[in-house]
Amino acid sequence: MPGNTFGQFFRITTAGESHGPGNVVIVDGVPAGIPLNVADLKVDLDRRRPGQSPLVTQRQEPDDPEILSGVFEDRTTGTSIAILIRNTDQRSGDYSDIRDKYRPGHADYTFDARYGFRDYRGGGRSSARETTSRVAAGVIAKKLIADQFGGQVVAYVKQVGSIVASVPFPEKVTLQQVEFLADGSPNFVRCPDYQAAEKMVQLIDEVRRDTDSIGGVSEIVATGVPAGLGEPVFDKLKADLAKALFSLPAVLGVEYGIGFGCAEMRGSQNNDIFVGGSGEEITASDERSLIRTSSNRHGGMLGGISSGMPIILRAAIKPTSSLAREQPTVTRDGLPTTIRTKGRHDPCLLPRFIPMAEAMVAIVLADHWLRWKAIRTA
Amino acid sequence: MPGNTFGQFFRITTAGESHGPGNVVIVDGVPAGIPLNVADLKVDLDRRRPGQSPLVTQRQEPDDPEILSGVFEDRTTGTSIAILIRNTDQRSGDYSDIRDKYRPGHADYTFDARYGFRDYRGGGRSSARETTSRVAAGVIAKKLIADQFGGQVVAYVKQVGSIVASVPFPEKVTLQQVEFLADGSPNFVRCPDYQAAEKMVQLIDEVRRDTDSIGGVSEIVATGVPAGLGEPVFDKLKADLAKALFSLPAVLGVEYGIGFGCAEMRGSQNNDIFVGGSGEEITASDERSLIRTSSNRHGGMLGGISSGMPIILRAAIKPTSSLAREQPTVTRDGLPTTIRTKGRHDPCLLPRFIPMAEAMVAIVLADHWLRWKAIRTA
Amino acid sequence: MPGNTFGQFFRITTAGESHGPGNVVIVDGVPAGIPLNVADLKVDLDRRRPGQSPLVTQRQEPDDPEILSGVFEDRTTGTSIAILIRNTDQRSGDYSDIRDKYRPGHADYTFDARYGFRDYRGGGRSSARETTSRVAAGVIAKKLIADQFGGQVVAYVKQVGSIVASVPFPEKVTLQQVEFLADGSPNFVRCPDYQAAEKMVQLIDEVRRDTDSIGGVSEIVATGVPAGLGEPVFDKLKADLAKALFSLPAVLGVEYGIGFGCAEMRGSQNNDIFVGGSGEEITASDERSLIRTSSNRHGGMLGGISSGMPIILRAAIKPTSSLAREQPTVTRDGLPTTIRTKGRHDPCLLPRFIPMAEAMVAIVLADHWLRWKAIRTA
Amino acid sequence: MPGNTFGQFFRITTAGESHGPGNVVIVDGVPAGIPLNVADLKVDLDRRRPGQSPLVTQRQEPDDPEILSGVFEDRTTGTSIAILIRNTDQRSGDYSDIRDKYRPGHADYTFDARYGFRDYRGGGRSSARETTSRVAAGVIAKKLIADQFGGQVVAYVKQVGSIVASVPFPEKVTLQQVEFLADGSPNFVRCPDYQAAEKMVQLIDEVRRDTDSIGGVSEIVATGVPAGLGEPVFDKLKADLAKALFSLPAVLGVEYGIGFGCAEMRGSQNNDIFVGGSGEEITASDERSLIRTSSNRHGGMLGGISSGMPIILRAAIKPTSSLAREQPTVTRDGLPTTIRTKGRHDPCLLPRFIPMAEAMVAIVLADHWLRWKAIRTA
Repeated sequence: MPGNTFGQFFRITTAGESHGPGNVVIVDGVPAGIPLNVADLKVDLDRRRPGQSPLVTQRQEPDDPEILSGVFEDRTTGTSIAILIRNTDQRSGDYSDIRDKYRPGHADYTFDARYGFRDYRGGGRSSARETTSRVAAGVIAKKLIADQFGGQVVAYVKQVGSIVASVPFPEKVTLQQVEFLADGSPNFVRCPDYQAAEKMVQLIDEVRRDTDSIGGVSEIVATGVPAGLGEPVFDKLKADLAKALFSLPAVLGVEYGIGFGCAEMRGSQNNDIFVGGSGEEITASDERSLIRTSSNRHGGMLGGISSGMPIILRAAIKPTSSLAREQPTVTRDGLPTTIRTKGRHDPCLLPRFIPMAEAMVAIVLADHWLRWKAIRTA
Repeated sequence: MPGNTFGQFFRITTAGESHGPGNVVIVDGVPAGIPLNVADLKVDLDRRRPGQSPLVTQRQEPDDPEILSGVFEDRTTGTSIAILIRNTDQRSGDYSDIRDKYRPGHADYTFDARYGFRDYRGGGRSSARETTSRVAAGVIAKKLIADQFGGQVVAYVKQVGSIVASVPFPEKVTLQQVEFLADGSPNFVRCPDYQAAEKMVQLIDEVRRDTDSIGGVSEIVATGVPAGLGEPVFDKLKADLAKALFSLPAVLGVEYGIGFGCAEMRGSQNNDIFVGGSGEEITASDERSLIRTSSNRHGGMLGGISSGMPIILRAAIKPTSSLAREQPTVTRDGLPTTIRTKGRHDPCLLPRFIPMAEAMVAIVLADHWLRWKAIRTA
Repeated sequence: MPGNTFGQFFRITTAGESHGPGNVVIVDGVPAGIPLNVADLKVDLDRRRPGQSPLVTQRQEPDDPEILSGVFEDRTTGTSIAILIRNTDQRSGDYSDIRDKYRPGHADYTFDARYGFRDYRGGGRSSARETTSRVAAGVIAKKLIADQFGGQVVAYVKQVGSIVASVPFPEKVTLQQVEFLADGSPNFVRCPDYQAAEKMVQLIDEVRRDTDSIGGVSEIVATGVPAGLGEPVFDKLKADLAKALFSLPAVLGVEYGIGFGCAEMRGSQNNDIFVGGSGEEITASDERSLIRTSSNRHGGMLGGISSGMPIILRAAIKPTSSLAREQPTVTRDGLPTTIRTKGRHDPCLLPRFIPMAEAMVAIVLADHWLRWKAIRTA
Repeated sequence: MPGNTFGQFFRITTAGESHGPGNVVIVDGVPAGIPLNVADLKVDLDRRRPGQSPLVTQRQEPDDPEILSGVFEDRTTGTSIAILIRNTDQRSGDYSDIRDKYRPGHADYTFDARYGFRDYRGGGRSSARETTSRVAAGVIAKKLIADQFGGQVVAYVKQVGSIVASVPFPEKVTLQQVEFLADGSPNFVRCPDYQAAEKMVQLIDEVRRDTDSIGGVSEIVATGVPAGLGEPVFDKLKADLAKALFSLPAVLGVEYGIGFGCAEMRGSQNNDIFVGGSGEEITASDERSLIRTSSNRHGGMLGGISSGMPIILRAAIKPTSSLAREQPTVTRDGLPTTIRTKGRHDPCLLPRFIPMAEAMVAIVLADHWLRWKAIRTA
């Protein structure tokens, strides 16, 4: 099948370009009766939208969603839900530069190689605007998993440049901590280690003034997930979560639990030990289970199936490719030239990546939950 | 759909447990006319099989495949290809230990949580024996990509414990270097940096004598891949490759190009610069292209679509969970006990991981190639 | 996967209810470069729309499509195409009747059984308004098959009540004949046998005045289809075409070639004889082929694969279930009552069924064409 | 995806040719804990196999299945179930005739058109031997639907040539009646109207002696199916059932309920009236429902969703194409010649079609049941 669909049972199909009329997502497989309205969608769309803070691009897009189907009297009906988010700030500028030159780090060249033809008025289908659809669908997924098994997904910024946050208990980080600082003001960088957050803000500001950009790492945590989600072979939960995160723009690496740190571990150090369910320090994800592990290097998944412990993932995000400085490149004909991206770009993608990552993880969990329901005896 | 199928167009479906009669794979979507016989399959199956060297488990499994369909007079017919690999060394031992106790790091507990019922005579469906199917299918994928676009996939061991190989030009590593040392003797550890390889062999030997195990990192390189493979949104080539690798047992992390290193990079450092096609140092993957990049931090994929540069991935593999020493755990009822895995396990999974990783990457490339063919105008 | 998606490679996903804001379709898998604009879509949407003639429902819906994505400068870009068709004539009337009572022949009861919850303001998702999405997508499919292999799909009314049209050469019927009478006036009933057409118009008129409805049969013909489309086992071309037609509302039977007539045939009568390609009476679908059959009882498909002869299908359509007369039924609680459908319904579904059937057949052909392209050697 | 897979959640993937080593099916999505062994599979395989009666082909194939995976201690484990049925009676004869000439009514020509290359030793992938896989999978589906909702599927021969059986209450026909005559002897033709059965046997015998073949119609009935199965749009239950039946060899038409008879009906005649659940003549399929219809022209499906009434389908089967008499045809080069099929063919496909049809219908019901379970709130 073509690549604009994600998920098996909780399934989203998207369309839309950055400079067309808008983005649309059809969410299929949603059980009937889940409360849903436009205000629900707005919460995460606002966390994703441009112009939300001084740290991010200053484009202004209200990202007001319209629910076209699948919801009646503020409840899902079981039929496919279509959501439309119109584009409003696509400036009809002069696109001759990006029509004829390949922006470094962007998909302009690879689109031309694939299709031989390209909507050159911006990133088109590979623009980050495409993720509005995912975030809207993610809201529905979050409601589904909360409703059906008390699942919750929280992501935050773990690292920007060489500044690494200290988050000793990932499973205890709250949305409140991600969104707000101690004094109640917005946590623009979405890092729950407030000291690190302050340094990250400074670094991002410095980088922007330098017409440059900076990379980072996000940590995504899912709690309340029962043991048993995931298929044992190809559709391992870890595999589908990794695909979900890698399908987001700018992600160059994904790991879970101890991740790449496992390379230096011995089995005797790395194995998490099973213990009985009571009196343990680590909060198990699934309170109903009698069995948990006394540590969580396995990041909540064993054999590709959730273990009931918190699911902990990390994704590495590259620095924004668009720079407000001149960069060497070539024309469509391969001749050397230079390009300078006009306008308004995020100096660091991390703060706006957070709701996208949460959405994709929630979608995978919703999907695997429905898949499990289908075969459960009970 | 259930989780025993992988790929859209080049599609494999597998079945089989470690202690049942055997493993079977159905490979669907293979064009007619590709030369294929049992000897072709044996090459990679032998690279994967137990007992192949002193470094790996000493179980003896000949892994002789039988082609049941889809091949006539040593050529594929276009219909589905079924391959059966019978199990021969499943010892009908005493399984009461693993029936009643949960092995640390294994999927015993999560299988019980998912299905409420389990073939307890070993890893069952989550045993590494399942990967025989993938390796057999991978041979077909390798032939397809070689035949149709000159594609090639070579993987090798990049790191074991803290020993990191120096491989300055990943795209130049040959299968010969991976399989053989300078003197023509087998390269048991499959690391093309022979000095590092020697140290890795020593470390693995030491770890085994210590009834322990060790993790590592594999690097996988695909060359000859034309620019244009991959779908721009969910089925980005990077996303499907990551899912493919994460679907293998013991993989805790995947990255491509500069990977997690991007977190500390600035955009001005990280962007690979497009250049005209001639006179460049780096060998472009697709010789036909006029345009390439002068460096390859993007690992051969931009916007999720292949760029024509070498595709370079890394996967982190955890240390084997089975240990020939006593480990604490619990019974099915959550009561504390200890378990000691009898028998014959790999002290390090990396050497046998190599053909599995190659297979999965080749399968993804074959799949995306067919997907691209369907929509190409030319 | 949930049921709002159709096709593997040429893939459509739809959403929308009769009384919501509108219907949306995402068409995925369309190659880049196919000319497409709103006017193209309007042609078939106008053939489907209510109010187009005295024979059909007098609801007025302009069915103006908006292309939201996937088209740039009037050509497809290769990315997913979203089309929105807003509802305009949903009268916010009194729905208490159909909220509490089950309309005979409708899906009200089965929706409640399935979802436990229903948008009761009309047919909702099972309304024929849903087919606007299919017809819009069908236009793209028609363009694709015409562009890539000269394929064409024409459907017409073969039977209404006991009036059966005489159409001796189905493969020679033109769109012009279906849409217009000899004098250039509209062929309201879409039957190319003008004598039968006149009787059908009279019958439908009579039935409507009698507050009743009448069934019929449509014949659908695809020409220009090369030999080789279709998968030999489950995705036989006949199987996918049958599914496509049965997925339309009110279809109770589908047959191809000689169809149910085969039951009384002997093999010696029924087998179509292969002949060399020249000098034959029947126009082969694929002019390039050397081989054809001298008769076409096989309806253009052998072993589920197209033979190059015209593909000929028939679908039986039940009489409209909504009647402007009182019918007995039950309430949601199973208590006896009566119901009378208010308003504006087609006394015969056939005339508006024609573009729907063409669309679905074209979509299947486009899909199988892309599937074939993926595996073809040439 | 390629065409050797059927179903979304209860999913079968098959491989195998008539003259290769054997046929294999992988059944995925089967819940854990369903009792299953080889003897269960044999029951329906014996109903399908050649040589079972004087009415059918006299080839001898024991069709002994081997379960390769997914079953442990005679219960399903939840993992994919692979079943292998080896071919034993493929005579290594002289195939030059069918290598170079196209058999009328067969897929020889269309295979060549599609793949350009063909296993010419018989029907290959389009041989009826392929249906062994379906029948084996169907046994599992039958057990699943019986186990989970008391569903049952019974098919029988409704018509051979012009002999039409009288079966006034399709939903009351038992497997016993289909398999045995009043005196306990085998009902070779599988028609529950014993008078018609006798005539059918005579007709088939006469046709065979005349080196000819004859077509017919099968009726398939599913009872015990709850209201609510089926998706409202593309994956309507009727659409998936039709695809399932059309995917079988030789099926030229499918209808349900009143079928093609609807063309002559008025809505006031055709609508089945809803009634309260008690005291009705027709046995509702789902005893738990309060609501049923007083007649069943809708064949148990409304809006593509099961209504709780018996599901009644009919399939038209063409006369066997292989004839033991000379027929004109062409060579691969289009030159005129004649062909006479050697050997052992069914003079009428109907008796052996019965278990195939039951299998496909059961597979669709199992699939839609699991799909429904995934989204049900209760």
